[in-house]
Amino acid sequence: MKAVQVVGYHTKLQLTDIPEPTIDGPLDVIVRIGGAGVCRTDLHILEGQWEAKSGVALPYTIGHENAGWVHAVGDAVTNVAVGDKVILHPLITCGLCRACRFGDDVHCQNSTFPGIDVNGGYAEYLRTTARSVVRIDDSLEPADVAALADAGLTAYHAVAKAAKTTRPGDVCVVIGAGGLGHIGIQVLKAISGVTVVVLDRNPAAVELAVKIGADHGIVADGTHIQQVLDLTGGHGAEAVVDFVGEGGATAEGIAMLRRAGNYYVVGYGENIDVPTIDVISTEINFIGNLVGSYNDLQELMTLAAQGKVTLHTTRYRLEDFQQALDDLDAGRVRGRAILVP
Amino acid sequence: MKAVQVVGYHTKLQLTDIPEPTIDGPLDVIVRIGGAGVCRTDLHILEGQWEAKSGVALPYTIGHENAGWVHAVGDAVTNVAVGDKVILHPLITCGLCRACRFGDDVHCQNSTFPGIDVNGGYAEYLRTTARSVVRIDDSLEPADVAALADAGLTAYHAVAKAAKTTRPGDVCVVIGAGGLGHIGIQVLKAISGVTVVVLDRNPAAVELAVKIGADHGIVADGTHIQQVLDLTGGHGAEAVVDFVGEGGATAEGIAMLRRAGNYYVVGYGENIDVPTIDVISTEINFIGNLVGSYNDLQELMTLAAQGKVTLHTTRYRLEDFQQALDDLDAGRVRGRAILVP
Amino acid sequence: MKAVQVVGYHTKLQLTDIPEPTIDGPLDVIVRIGGAGVCRTDLHILEGQWEAKSGVALPYTIGHENAGWVHAVGDAVTNVAVGDKVILHPLITCGLCRACRFGDDVHCQNSTFPGIDVNGGYAEYLRTTARSVVRIDDSLEPADVAALADAGLTAYHAVAKAAKTTRPGDVCVVIGAGGLGHIGIQVLKAISGVTVVVLDRNPAAVELAVKIGADHGIVADGTHIQQVLDLTGGHGAEAVVDFVGEGGATAEGIAMLRRAGNYYVVGYGENIDVPTIDVISTEINFIGNLVGSYNDLQELMTLAAQGKVTLHTTRYRLEDFQQALDDLDAGRVRGRAILVP
Amino acid sequence: MKAVQVVGYHTKLQLTDIPEPTIDGPLDVIVRIGGAGVCRTDLHILEGQWEAKSGVALPYTIGHENAGWVHAVGDAVTNVAVGDKVILHPLITCGLCRACRFGDDVHCQNSTFPGIDVNGGYAEYLRTTARSVVRIDDSLEPADVAALADAGLTAYHAVAKAAKTTRPGDVCVVIGAGGLGHIGIQVLKAISGVTVVVLDRNPAAVELAVKIGADHGIVADGTHIQQVLDLTGGHGAEAVVDFVGEGGATAEGIAMLRRAGNYYVVGYGENIDVPTIDVISTEINFIGNLVGSYNDLQELMTLAAQGKVTLHTTRYRLEDFQQALDDLDAGRVRGRAILVP
Repeated sequence: MKAVQVVGYHTKLQLTDIPEPTIDGPLDVIVRIGGAGVCRTDLHILEGQWEAKSGVALPYTIGHENAGWVHAVGDAVTNVAVGDKVILHPLITCGLCRACRFGDDVHCQNSTFPGIDVNGGYAEYLRTTARSVVRIDDSLEPADVAALADAGLTAYHAVAKAAKTTRPGDVCVVIGAGGLGHIGIQVLKAISGVTVVVLDRNPAAVELAVKIGADHGIVADGTHIQQVLDLTGGHGAEAVVDFVGEGGATAEGIAMLRRAGNYYVVGYGENIDVPTIDVISTEINFIGNLVGSYNDLQELMTLAAQGKVTLHTTRYRLEDFQQALDDLDAGRVRGRAILVP
Repeated sequence: MKAVQVVGYHTKLQLTDIPEPTIDGPLDVIVRIGGAGVCRTDLHILEGQWEAKSGVALPYTIGHENAGWVHAVGDAVTNVAVGDKVILHPLITCGLCRACRFGDDVHCQNSTFPGIDVNGGYAEYLRTTARSVVRIDDSLEPADVAALADAGLTAYHAVAKAAKTTRPGDVCVVIGAGGLGHIGIQVLKAISGVTVVVLDRNPAAVELAVKIGADHGIVADGTHIQQVLDLTGGHGAEAVVDFVGEGGATAEGIAMLRRAGNYYVVGYGENIDVPTIDVISTEINFIGNLVGSYNDLQELMTLAAQGKVTLHTTRYRLEDFQQALDDLDAGRVRGRAILVP
Repeated sequence: MKAVQVVGYHTKLQLTDIPEPTIDGPLDVIVRIGGAGVCRTDLHILEGQWEAKSGVALPYTIGHENAGWVHAVGDAVTNVAVGDKVILHPLITCGLCRACRFGDDVHCQNSTFPGIDVNGGYAEYLRTTARSVVRIDDSLEPADVAALADAGLTAYHAVAKAAKTTRPGDVCVVIGAGGLGHIGIQVLKAISGVTVVVLDRNPAAVELAVKIGADHGIVADGTHIQQVLDLTGGHGAEAVVDFVGEGGATAEGIAMLRRAGNYYVVGYGENIDVPTIDVISTEINFIGNLVGSYNDLQELMTLAAQGKVTLHTTRYRLEDFQQALDDLDAGRVRGRAILVP
Repeated sequence: MKAVQVVGYHTKLQLTDIPEPTIDGPLDVIVRIGGAGVCRTDLHILEGQWEAKSGVALPYTIGHENAGWVHAVGDAVTNVAVGDKVILHPLITCGLCRACRFGDDVHCQNSTFPGIDVNGGYAEYLRTTARSVVRIDDSLEPADVAALADAGLTAYHAVAKAAKTTRPGDVCVVIGAGGLGHIGIQVLKAISGVTVVVLDRNPAAVELAVKIGADHGIVADGTHIQQVLDLTGGHGAEAVVDFVGEGGATAEGIAMLRRAGNYYVVGYGENIDVPTIDVISTEINFIGNLVGSYNDLQELMTLAAQGKVTLHTTRYRLEDFQQALDDLDAGRVRGRAILVP
């Protein structure tokens, strides 16, 4: 089958022909890829940023946001059947460790990560397991939802926590109206009564955010901290969800946070650098957020099927992977780029 | 009446004679002081560290850890009667703001703080309100519990949160086996099944901590992070309660924290300085902690009455306040110093 | 002032002239009534159903769903000022007991209930306290929101609990599409992503419920249990909010509940009569619901100001109270009847 | 191997020789039985009470409280190895349904129940899966802990919920100081600061309950409701855990419950029959409780290894199963009867 592989770092991906994956274990599931999201992480992998961390042997197939159709299943698979339309949870988890037994899939002690440390989805077929396939509604197309598998799931996971700790009249500031931010805003409006205030440096992104449901949009122009304080009677917001995490976002975000507020860290890059005296005197919390669980992905797919969460995508043929990556790198992709085999 | 007052910064406290406080408002309560804790914060006040923050007009009476007997009550006071033995919640709160209405007393938008920004308890009498007096059991003496009013309440509040998020088999590391640490350890053992591991640089403090209930005591000698990892199968602890917050404690504490773990910030001094990538990739949380609520103080007094939380104290006559402060400053006080009028 | 009073049981209310209430205590607030809801409970009071329970001395002024403008305030009132537009929490609470200190206003150990055991709002003025007045948005009119003070607040309180325990894809069955049901449906859609299924015997009520946001409407015609099971893959609903509580509603509701589901009891009349073996083998819960807290009422007023919760009302002049009661008794009121002085 | 089987209802169990179970699936685990609890449910099975519900084909091997040593494992088993000492979660769960993915094992949509609907543990060997084996500490013996697998796990699960919703000073009434009650009391004392009040008709059982940690023991002699009210200032208890559920226990238990209290239903037999008006006017909750999850069992085993939960047992050789059942039926067993092959 066709597959796009990492053959070295600081070099281009290569389209090649490799054997189709086979059912090796009783819970294995082979998925025919219907769409694979092209993510900034893929660029970082090529730059070698994940080399040490993943320890993956080259060459391997890249692509960690995948959806498609079940092509084959192992003997012990009972939750999906051949032909089912599915999206893939990004991790392959053991199901036996204490974290898995609590439903905290992302803290599985024995997980692998297709596209990062085993073969991923820039290909015609991918091998995962029964524990990672979520059936999607008939009304959804794999290529349309693939990018929700990782980026969308991360946004869902973070804002679902914020939804649990806020109430009508409370304010949730969303820092960053990019891909994750847009999913986050739609989810917040769908599952909570919180007032959503969106911040971004890009006026067009702010405008779009308001269009899809944000209650207030603020262009980050230097007056934005004060604007948030003004909107909140000088007290700050009960929740800040930070999809940026660099370029000074955390210091600004903390300045917008109300006493006893929760700061959800999602984006990354810089350090949180905050005096402990400030943490205790205002009693604020910093909440880390990784990608969501399998059940989170089911819930996000429910919202997608209900039309409450949508994603703009631009499709490329699998063979045009280089064009997709170049467009992403150059900021020419509107929404998410999706490779379709 | 006799009162010990701040008459200037960088100068000594002065014992003086001032009028007894009077009932001015319908919810006012005058308390005859039975014991007033001598706290390191009192030293800091004299050094001027709180001058700008509190904005208090001099002279005023210092002392923020108070207990005694109800001496007089306003017309609208229904929860205590003259003669009742009481401990005082450190804040005087409005009872009308949204935070008060949620029971989050410490986030009251209109609070005062006797001993910090209004007259405190180094005196024969103190004025507070019905909202700040907690009746204590007949078996307890004001001078024995006074120091639980602030230091103890802070420890209770923090470890009660840790108790809620841990389960039998989980490990809670307590950094710092000083005054707050000792209360924290006793409370953890009284209200949860978590395994308590105590760290301190002082071997005697560690030894005492184990004596009062800690499951493991570790002297912070450079091998302590590794010892915690060894105790937890290499995974780290589900919870870290940091009563130190300076001298590198936070970096060390984070290194001992398990994926998805909670870091309770109580002590302060240094900055938390942690890469956002570390926060999100391990999905850890930092939880700020201020002093507890009125109801928290009731619960702590229940534990004290049950003999589950005890405090070693050294009593001084009110007139000997300078000796008490000098002893505290010189590290000569075992347990807490208490002024008794 | 004019007031409508209970002068005896099994006899009609009487419009009379009584002195205006005065500020007696420091936290007292006199409210000029802008609207008083006419509730079925008022009919029950006249029938003597509350005589023993309330122990109120006759005559007294009826009316427990009130909103208006602040007319006068006691010395210690800081949260509202004369002229403020307010809705009244139905209870007057002490603010000092442990329940009040947790924000559980309805479990106050020393509360009174205007319109039930002290003078209520079928009058020009009513006396309450600072703890019971919630300022409302400029855009809201007292007569339009008065009925949210009790009926609406009860519905809000119950469905807010259901919202906390459900997730996208879960189903919440609302039994009863009357006054409380309509508020409940609007709130559920505003604050959660749960799928709302409404049941009522009245096809017109079901139709209206779907119009205001219910995802599915089912006429209770004998096939309704099966219809809910069909909608839920045979498993039943994760939550049932029962606004009826009589006429067999509870047995039917339990039959629609999924394993580990929550049954929210709001309406009343019949007994819950369920084998303990069924409770434990399916591990279902029954959750009691009384009226909401002060903070709940603030949140409901936020939703009202945002236009997310609206109420159809029919206004009557205070003098026409008898007509309002007669219309209510005869089922001739569309929405809620409101008396306007 | 030797196995004790149900060969018909209303007839005696039969010791017979059947083939050893074999590894059929990749996650299968064969356990050499070290102890099998003899439970009242086993008597009920023989009386045919479970015939329709389980639908099990006869003959089959009875016994649902099992512990022992891993004898053989399937290819995909990674969490235990041959020779490991284990206790068995009573259910065999799929690991793929939404309930399993939340860690709610007992609500698995595809579970089997050894000893109830497939072969159980009155035998030399039993087949389960990797998802049901919990490694136990070296210090524990299978025969000593076997009865914690079901009865103990149920008690743990219920009181752990009660522990989460109570605080120091709150009262938890435990109705029934039998097998489950004794485990429940020990767990409550180990993981919470709640005050435990135990009720039983048997003075000896009450005495033992106090000996193992209950704060108050009350013999149910007709004055017990009043005694609980007296102990709680007339308010009732914040939590009631009812291990009896028959003979009027629920009506009495409700009468002891405080406003906003939680009633944990564990024992069964009679109906809960309570007016909805009482449920809503006091806002009480009824919480159903089934056996605990896999992780709950790990936690209970931690408490057992720490010596915080112990169980008195009487051992019988497997061949003496009839004697054990007869002794149980006649009330001659002290603690739990355990069959040891």
